[in-house]
Amino acid sequence: MQPDLHPSSTSARVLHHFHQRSPLVHCMTNDVVQTFTANVLLALGASPAMVIDPQEAAPFAAIADALLINVGTLTRDRADAMRLAVGAASAAGKPWSLDPVAVGVLALRSEFCRELLALRPAAIRGNPSEILALVGMSAGGRGVDTTDTAAAALPAAQKLARQCGAVVAVTGEMDYITDGRRTVAVAGGDPLMTRVVGTGCALSAVVAASCALPGERLENVASSCLWMKRAGSTATQNSAGPGSFIPAFLDALYGLAKEMHG
Amino acid sequence: MQPDLHPSSTSARVLHHFHQRSPLVHCMTNDVVQTFTANVLLALGASPAMVIDPQEAAPFAAIADALLINVGTLTRDRADAMRLAVGAASAAGKPWSLDPVAVGVLALRSEFCRELLALRPAAIRGNPSEILALVGMSAGGRGVDTTDTAAAALPAAQKLARQCGAVVAVTGEMDYITDGRRTVAVAGGDPLMTRVVGTGCALSAVVAASCALPGERLENVASSCLWMKRAGSTATQNSAGPGSFIPAFLDALYGLAKEMHG
Amino acid sequence: MQPDLHPSSTSARVLHHFHQRSPLVHCMTNDVVQTFTANVLLALGASPAMVIDPQEAAPFAAIADALLINVGTLTRDRADAMRLAVGAASAAGKPWSLDPVAVGVLALRSEFCRELLALRPAAIRGNPSEILALVGMSAGGRGVDTTDTAAAALPAAQKLARQCGAVVAVTGEMDYITDGRRTVAVAGGDPLMTRVVGTGCALSAVVAASCALPGERLENVASSCLWMKRAGSTATQNSAGPGSFIPAFLDALYGLAKEMHG
Repeated sequence: MQPDLHPSSTSARVLHHFHQRSPLVHCMTNDVVQTFTANVLLALGASPAMVIDPQEAAPFAAIADALLINVGTLTRDRADAMRLAVGAASAAGKPWSLDPVAVGVLALRSEFCRELLALRPAAIRGNPSEILALVGMSAGGRGVDTTDTAAAALPAAQKLARQCGAVVAVTGEMDYITDGRRTVAVAGGDPLMTRVVGTGCALSAVVAASCALPGERLENVASSCLWMKRAGSTATQNSAGPGSFIPAFLDALYGLAKEMHG
Repeated sequence: MQPDLHPSSTSARVLHHFHQRSPLVHCMTNDVVQTFTANVLLALGASPAMVIDPQEAAPFAAIADALLINVGTLTRDRADAMRLAVGAASAAGKPWSLDPVAVGVLALRSEFCRELLALRPAAIRGNPSEILALVGMSAGGRGVDTTDTAAAALPAAQKLARQCGAVVAVTGEMDYITDGRRTVAVAGGDPLMTRVVGTGCALSAVVAASCALPGERLENVASSCLWMKRAGSTATQNSAGPGSFIPAFLDALYGLAKEMHG
Repeated sequence: MQPDLHPSSTSARVLHHFHQRSPLVHCMTNDVVQTFTANVLLALGASPAMVIDPQEAAPFAAIADALLINVGTLTRDRADAMRLAVGAASAAGKPWSLDPVAVGVLALRSEFCRELLALRPAAIRGNPSEILALVGMSAGGRGVDTTDTAAAALPAAQKLARQCGAVVAVTGEMDYITDGRRTVAVAGGDPLMTRVVGTGCALSAVVAASCALPGERLENVASSCLWMKRAGSTATQNSAGPGSFIPAFLDALYGLAKEMHG
């Protein structure tokens, strides 16, 4: 049975909350997507901050509204700082989210992600191969790209959500968002988005931010997915390739409220 | 009493010096703004170089025309390398400048910035909350964004300039640049600049570069502020949001000499 | 005697191989150019992945189709991880390439590059000053910019190619690509490319990727140079400065097959 599509009207309402709250998002993310992630959050009205030193990351995680952990360019030192930040966020009652980049392919990040799952993330956003790898149902993809479809990974996403109490978003041509009981789907976007680095990683930052909002977490995370797909479709129409897609995408995110509220 | 506006004609003259000299700028800056900082310097005709290893940073600081220290993603290792670079720049008579990102909010960077102030920076560029925090007049903002206006931080900027012999630029809707005795103001720009990551950090790199120019340092730093505000206004007119602002801003910096010299 | 120009028809054929193979490229590169490098590879249909931890870099280098080592922001820790990755790539029969950024200027990277030359890179891509420094014929430039012409460095490039069995590309206004016996030239591009950070570093990543293709390595590397010059010329025509050059360049790379195959 195909899950229901997440309604655009809910997504517009959550975007209004997002703009009102303007969440301060502590991003501990990979080297490649830092700038794009910050610009995506800024375009949506959030406030990004990258703080990485172990001594600083813990207190900052308690100050920020939400924390993102992305293991794309993990090192042992970064894992130590992330561990402290997750601990501090949890102690302060702040939600933290996980982007398990290329989990299952490489040992350090695979062990670290398994360790993190026990610490109750608010949300997990990954591609199908990553979600399958997280529940041990696959050895993962070959690199950072997926070799499975989101539909094929949906049972794994639902199992993962039940196991660790997180909202899980498995994203691809169609996105599925589940809390283990309820599942919604988000359509849209364009394959051109996969020819630009960081669209998935930036979505994870928006997902992390959305977990700081009031209301139901499943709806907040699904709304994040819909904003990015909607902006991706608009940007594709306004661009001649992956280069012009980037500014068009940020402009589309910036103008999203106007577009969605009509 | 409102400080005089920095004259556009002086700014045009300093830009001519900047292009003639094409300063080699050693940037030790945060992870998020590296690319944008380099592209801003290149668009203005300067030559950026990011060298970070402790063993390499010290000799390179002596070779370069100017050094930038930005503590946005400080770690203990980076602080060690920065300390060595500042020492080598000072010994070689090369100016170094400080961008105290989020000082006052987090302990490591606050202690490090206090330590650096004793080493006589040529210039300091910060937002109002950061400048207030540097002189101990505030506990700082909540994150990287300011919670004060530049005018409110002007007395702190003047005190800081006198204390450490630096030109201090406190920037916001209006920029104020002071050497502790004389103060000038720079108007312009657009709030859209705050929806793009790195405009402030890149300004700090331009400020650092301008300290390598002949002439009065106050005028050189104020000119840097004016170039960025001018390009920001032009770019805002030529863009549909923060995404298209980025290329338009770099284009505007690149074409600034033609625009300012008529 | 001026070397023959590399034929555009060969370059078009190699691009077809590149798209078919879509090489997975392990990039160990500098902090400043990570995003642009990834986007250039994606625009050309390759699959970039940045893996930097020593424990992960070695196994990943064996999985990937090609490895890039760029020493722009080298540190001791990064050198250790790169050494392991080069060893693993070599053991797995995967080609690795070197971009010796600013070699000759600074000690750590100069020693490291000399060490790497003994490990038989498939290709080396540098500016004239870097290539001269690698063969000990110069003390290197002042920073990351070259102070020599590619033609002046051609004998050094040929000597270097013979010494370490690599294809060497020395790039500038004219590019020369040599295996030590045969040399070809690639014309085109635009000086505007030097006002955007990372065009050279991204070319090195494409060169690294091209070494994973079937056929003659000299032709594959020369084709990479031609793609970048061709896209640079197209982008310059479609842009108003270095800012708009960036998206136009990625769009041009993305549309290159259509343009070259007519």
